[in-house]
Amino acid sequence: MSYSLELYYGPMSVLDVVLGRPLPSSEERAEQIGPAKGIPIFGLDALGSAAYGPEAALTLLIPLGVAGLHYILPLSACIIVLLAVVYFSYRQTIAAYPSGGGSYIVARQNLGTFSGLLAGAALLIDYALDAAVGISAGIGALTSAAPSLHPHTLALCLISLLILTVVNLRGVRETGAIFMTPTYLFLACMGIALVIGIAKAIGSGGHPTPVVSPPLSHAAAGVVSLWLLLKSYASGCTALTGVEAVSNGVGAFREDRVKNARRTLGIIIAALGLMLAGIAYLVKAYGIVATDPNGNNYQSVLSMLLGAVVGRGWFYYVSIASILLLLTLSANTAFADFPRVCRFVAEDGYLPTAFANRGRRLVYSEGICVLALITAALLIGFGGITDRLIPLFAVGAILSFTMSQAGMVAHWKREGGPGARRNMLINLLGAIATGITVLIVIAAKFSEGAWVTLVAIPSLIALMYGVHKHYVKIRREIEIKTPLDADRQSPPILVVTIQGWTRVNKQALRVAMVLSPDIKVVHVAEENQPNEFCDRWREYVEQPAVRSRLPIPELVRISSPYRFVVTPIVQYVNQLAADNPDRRIITVIPELMERRWYYWLLHTQRATILKTRILMECSDRVSVLNIPWHLKSV
Amino acid sequence: MSYSLELYYGPMSVLDVVLGRPLPSSEERAEQIGPAKGIPIFGLDALGSAAYGPEAALTLLIPLGVAGLHYILPLSACIIVLLAVVYFSYRQTIAAYPSGGGSYIVARQNLGTFSGLLAGAALLIDYALDAAVGISAGIGALTSAAPSLHPHTLALCLISLLILTVVNLRGVRETGAIFMTPTYLFLACMGIALVIGIAKAIGSGGHPTPVVSPPLSHAAAGVVSLWLLLKSYASGCTALTGVEAVSNGVGAFREDRVKNARRTLGIIIAALGLMLAGIAYLVKAYGIVATDPNGNNYQSVLSMLLGAVVGRGWFYYVSIASILLLLTLSANTAFADFPRVCRFVAEDGYLPTAFANRGRRLVYSEGICVLALITAALLIGFGGITDRLIPLFAVGAILSFTMSQAGMVAHWKREGGPGARRNMLINLLGAIATGITVLIVIAAKFSEGAWVTLVAIPSLIALMYGVHKHYVKIRREIEIKTPLDADRQSPPILVVTIQGWTRVNKQALRVAMVLSPDIKVVHVAEENQPNEFCDRWREYVEQPAVRSRLPIPELVRISSPYRFVVTPIVQYVNQLAADNPDRRIITVIPELMERRWYYWLLHTQRATILKTRILMECSDRVSVLNIPWHLKSV
Repeated sequence: MSYSLELYYGPMSVLDVVLGRPLPSSEERAEQIGPAKGIPIFGLDALGSAAYGPEAALTLLIPLGVAGLHYILPLSACIIVLLAVVYFSYRQTIAAYPSGGGSYIVARQNLGTFSGLLAGAALLIDYALDAAVGISAGIGALTSAAPSLHPHTLALCLISLLILTVVNLRGVRETGAIFMTPTYLFLACMGIALVIGIAKAIGSGGHPTPVVSPPLSHAAAGVVSLWLLLKSYASGCTALTGVEAVSNGVGAFREDRVKNARRTLGIIIAALGLMLAGIAYLVKAYGIVATDPNGNNYQSVLSMLLGAVVGRGWFYYVSIASILLLLTLSANTAFADFPRVCRFVAEDGYLPTAFANRGRRLVYSEGICVLALITAALLIGFGGITDRLIPLFAVGAILSFTMSQAGMVAHWKREGGPGARRNMLINLLGAIATGITVLIVIAAKFSEGAWVTLVAIPSLIALMYGVHKHYVKIRREIEIKTPLDADRQSPPILVVTIQGWTRVNKQALRVAMVLSPDIKVVHVAEENQPNEFCDRWREYVEQPAVRSRLPIPELVRISSPYRFVVTPIVQYVNQLAADNPDRRIITVIPELMERRWYYWLLHTQRATILKTRILMECSDRVSVLNIPWHLKSV
Repeated sequence: MSYSLELYYGPMSVLDVVLGRPLPSSEERAEQIGPAKGIPIFGLDALGSAAYGPEAALTLLIPLGVAGLHYILPLSACIIVLLAVVYFSYRQTIAAYPSGGGSYIVARQNLGTFSGLLAGAALLIDYALDAAVGISAGIGALTSAAPSLHPHTLALCLISLLILTVVNLRGVRETGAIFMTPTYLFLACMGIALVIGIAKAIGSGGHPTPVVSPPLSHAAAGVVSLWLLLKSYASGCTALTGVEAVSNGVGAFREDRVKNARRTLGIIIAALGLMLAGIAYLVKAYGIVATDPNGNNYQSVLSMLLGAVVGRGWFYYVSIASILLLLTLSANTAFADFPRVCRFVAEDGYLPTAFANRGRRLVYSEGICVLALITAALLIGFGGITDRLIPLFAVGAILSFTMSQAGMVAHWKREGGPGARRNMLINLLGAIATGITVLIVIAAKFSEGAWVTLVAIPSLIALMYGVHKHYVKIRREIEIKTPLDADRQSPPILVVTIQGWTRVNKQALRVAMVLSPDIKVVHVAEENQPNEFCDRWREYVEQPAVRSRLPIPELVRISSPYRFVVTPIVQYVNQLAADNPDRRIITVIPELMERRWYYWLLHTQRATILKTRILMECSDRVSVLNIPWHLKSV
C-alpha cells in the first residue's frame, strides 16, 4: 500500500515568513541560476579581493616609500598570472566534475581520502575565517566613516551576520537576486574609475595630475629585500581566496551547467584580473603609497586612488559606499560554499550526515547554520575586530588549490584521451605555482598566525576521521540483510508507574491491559505511609478486572526511604529485566500534557526524567510506552 | 505484593561529595536541632540587625549634629518595645502552631486565604531582598576594608551566594554547625565591648573619655521635626527583619519543639534588644554621630564605637571582622526561612508543588535553589552593590508581622479558654504597633523605593492565585474515584516508523508484532526514489510473517516532496486516528542510544522531535512506544 500525503500550508508560520515557504524537491530546477546571479553568489569574495589584495601588498611596501611602487607592477603581474593559472585549472575541473568538483572531490577521487580531507579541512577553515573577516572588514570601514557607530561594532557585525544567514537560508535564487545590485554597482564604479584614470594617465604621458593629491609619503625607511617582496606577494595573494567557490557550486547552475559555471568563473576572474592590473597601474602612475593602517591619517588605497582620479564628488562617495557594502557581503561566498563543501564531506561520512540534507529552501541549511555559529563565535571572541585573524587565512584557500590541481594531474594521467597531455601540463603548472605560493604564504605569515591554521587543519582532519570511524562502527553493528525472525515471542511484561488514581493513570492502565496479561503496577512511597490508591487497589483495579475476566495486574509497592521516585523505579525495572532474561519489558509512563510551556514549571519533570533514565540505563529489552493525557479545560 | 528496595550507594558521586549523601526520612530526628544551632540558623539576620539598625536610624539624624543624639535613646526604646511585643506574640504563635506557624499559616488559618497570601508574598519578597542586601553589605564592608578587592565585588558576592546555597542544601544540622562559630564570636565581641563601654561610662559619671575619639560632627544643619524622627524610626525598624524566621522553622527543632523554638527566639530577641539598648546608650555617652555613608571619611557607627571603647587594638579588628562575617552570613536567615514559607504556600497549592518536596538532605531544596537564582539575578542586575534595594525591604517583614498578630487576635477570639483574653490583648497591641509601623515605613520610604514592594506584593499574590486556579482546574479534570472500566477493548493499531532495515528497526518491529495484529510500517521518502527496504519488503518482512503465521504488517510509503520526515508521520498518525475513532494508536519509534552526549551530534534528532510532536500534537488515543538500541561496540 502506498499512501501519498498532501502537505497543507494554511496560515503562514513565523518560520515561513522569515525563511520562505518550503520548496518541494521538484522545484530544484526553478531554483537554479545563470551567470547573472552566479556572480553575486559565488563571486563576492573574489571581487571584493580587489579592495584589499593590492592594499595588503602595498602596506608591506610602505617602508620603501615611493620607491616601493616600482615593485607593485611585477608583484601584481605574478598574482594575475597565478589567477590565470587557477582559472584554467578550474575551467577543466568544472568540465570534469559537472555535479560539483571542488578541491575536496577532486583530491579525494584522484589522490585518496587523506588528500581530500586535507583540501576540505583547509577550505572549511578558510571559509570560516573569511566570513568573520569579511563582515568585520565591512563594518570596520563603516565605523571609520561614521565614528559614532564605533561602540556598536560587534552589534553591527552580528546583525550583518544574521542578515547573511537568513538570506542564504532562503535559497540560492533569492540570495542571487538580493546581492545583484551591490555587486554590479561595485563593478560599474570600479570600471568607470579605472577607465577614466587610465585615460587620464595615458593622455598625460604617464604622469597624470591627481584631482585630490594623495598624502605625501615618508622618505624611504628601509631597503628592498627578496624577503620583503615575498611577504608583499604573500599578502597580495589573499586576492585569490574565494575563486574556488564556483567549482563546488556547479550543481546550483541551470543547464548547460558546465557552460554557465565556466562563464561565471570566467567573468569573475576577468573582472578581478582587470581590476588588479588597473589598480596596480594607476597606483604607480599617481604615486600612491599605502598609509599606515594603525596611524591617525590612515586612508585606504582605493579611497586615495578614487580621490586622485575623480575627486571627492558624488561619484567618489557612491564608489566608496559600494566598496564597503561589497566587503561586508564578501562573507557571502563563505555562506555559499562552506555548506557545499560540508555536504560533500558528509556524504562520504566524514562529517555528521545532517550536513548532507537539503533544508526547506533546497540549500544545505545545517552548513549555513553551523557557519553562522562559528562566525558569531569568532566575531564575539574578537569583539567584532578581527584584524588578528587576517594572517590566518589565504593559507587554506591556496593549499586547497594546490590539492585540487595535483588531483587534476592524476585525473588526466588516468583518463588519457585527446588533450589529456595538454590539460595535465596546465594543471601541473598550476600545482607547482600554487604549491610554491603556499610555502611562501606559510613562511611569510608563520609568526603572525599562519601556524594556527597549521594546527587547526590537522585537528579538523582528525575530527573527520573520528566521525567516519564512529559511523563505520555503527553501520557495522546495525546493518543487516537478514529477514525478520518471526518466531513466536512471549508477551512483554508491562510496568505501569502510578502514583495516584487519576484519569491520566487510569487511561494508561487500560492501554497496558490490552497489550499483555502480565502487568505490574508500581507505586513508590516513603515507608509506612497510607495511600489512597494502594488502599483502594482492590476496589479500583482488582475487582473490575476479575469481573471482566481480564488478567489481574499486580501491585508493587516500593518504599523509598530517600524520597526518590525515579531511581527506585529504574532499579526495579532493571531487576525485573535481570530476573526475566527471556522477556521484554515495557515501562508505561502516563504523562500530563500541558498546552503552554510555562505551565510545565508547575509540575515536577518526573515523567521526562524517568523516560530518559530508563532508555539510557536499562537494556535493549526495556522500552518506554509514553501515554499522554492532554488537559482539556486548561 | 510489596517490594522493598535497598538503595545502593557505592562509589560517591560528585553530587554526594558536594551536597552530602542522601538522608533517609527516618533520620529526620537526627537532623533536628536545639537552640545552640537554632540561633545561627534562624537568628543571623536578626542579630546582624544590631550592626545596621542603629546605623540606619543615626544616619537620618546627621543633620541635627550632636543634638540628634538626644533622640536616639527614645527611638531605640520604641524599637525595643516593638521587638518585645513581636517576641511575646511569636512566643504564643509557636505554642499555637507547633508544626510551624509563620505569618502565612496564622493569617491564612484565621483571617482567610487572601490575608495569608498577603503575609506570605510580603515575607517572600522581603527574604529575597534580604539575601541580596545581606551578601552585598558584607562584601561591601570587606571591599572597603581591602580596596584592592573592589573590582571583584560581584564575583565575591556570587561566591558567597554559592557557599550559602551549598551549605543550606547540605541540610539544617550542617548549616547550624558551620555558622555557630561566627555567630557566637560576634555575640562575644559585642557583649565584651558593650560591657566595657557601659562600665567606663558609669565609672566616669556618664562622660567617658574615648580611647580613639570619633570624628567631630558638623554643626547642626537642620532642625528636628516629627517627620525626621519618623523617618529615623522607620529606618531603625530594619532591625526587626528576620525575627519571623523561628516561627516558620519550629519543625526543625527537636522535642520539646515548642520549648526549644521559644528558647531560641527568646535568646535571639534578648541579645538583639540588649545590643540595641547598649549601642544607643554608648553612642549618646561617647557623643558618636553617624558619618555620611557617601562621604570620603565614612566610618560605621560600630567601628567608631569600638574604637572609642577599646581603641584600635587586636580586639577591635577581631570584632570588626566578626561583624563583616555576620553581615554576609545574615543572608542565611533568608535561606532558612524562604524555602519553608514556600513549602507552606505550595502545600496549599498556591506555588508549584515541587516546593513542598524535601530534597536529599531533608531540606526544601527547590526553595533554596529558587532563592539562590533570585538572589543571583538581583546581585548581577545591581552589579553586587545593592544600596538601592535597602529602602525596599523591612516593609514586607513588618507587614507580615502585622498579619500574623491580627491572625492571632482572631485565633484567641475563636479559641477562648483560660488566658485567651490576655493573649488576645497582647496580640492586639502587637497588631496595632506593627500596623502603625508599617504605615510609617511605607510613608517614610515611599519615594525611595518602598512603592516597588507595594507593586511586587500584589503581583506575587496574583501569581499565587493563578497557580492555584490552574491546579484546581487540573485536579477537577483528572481526579476520579471510579474504578477501572474493564471492558474488553480492541487491540491498538501500531505504527512503526522505519527508514531503513537495521537491527534497531528490526527489533522494534519484532516488539510491535507481539503487541497487536494490526501493524503499519511507515516509510517516508522523496518521491520516486528506489529504496532498498521497501524494495525488499516481501523478503524482509512479509514472507517470514506468512511462514510463521503471524499477522502481516502493512507497508505505508509516504512521499514527502518537501523532504520533511517528521511532519508527514505526524500527519499520517493524526489521519489514522481520525479514521479509526474507536481505536488506540501506538507510534513505535526505534531509537539508537549513544553512550556519550557528544556522539548525539552525529545524528539527526529526528526520534526525539517525532516523540515530542506526537505527544504534543496528537490526541490522547495516540501514545508513543520508544524502543532503544544501545550500541555495544561504540
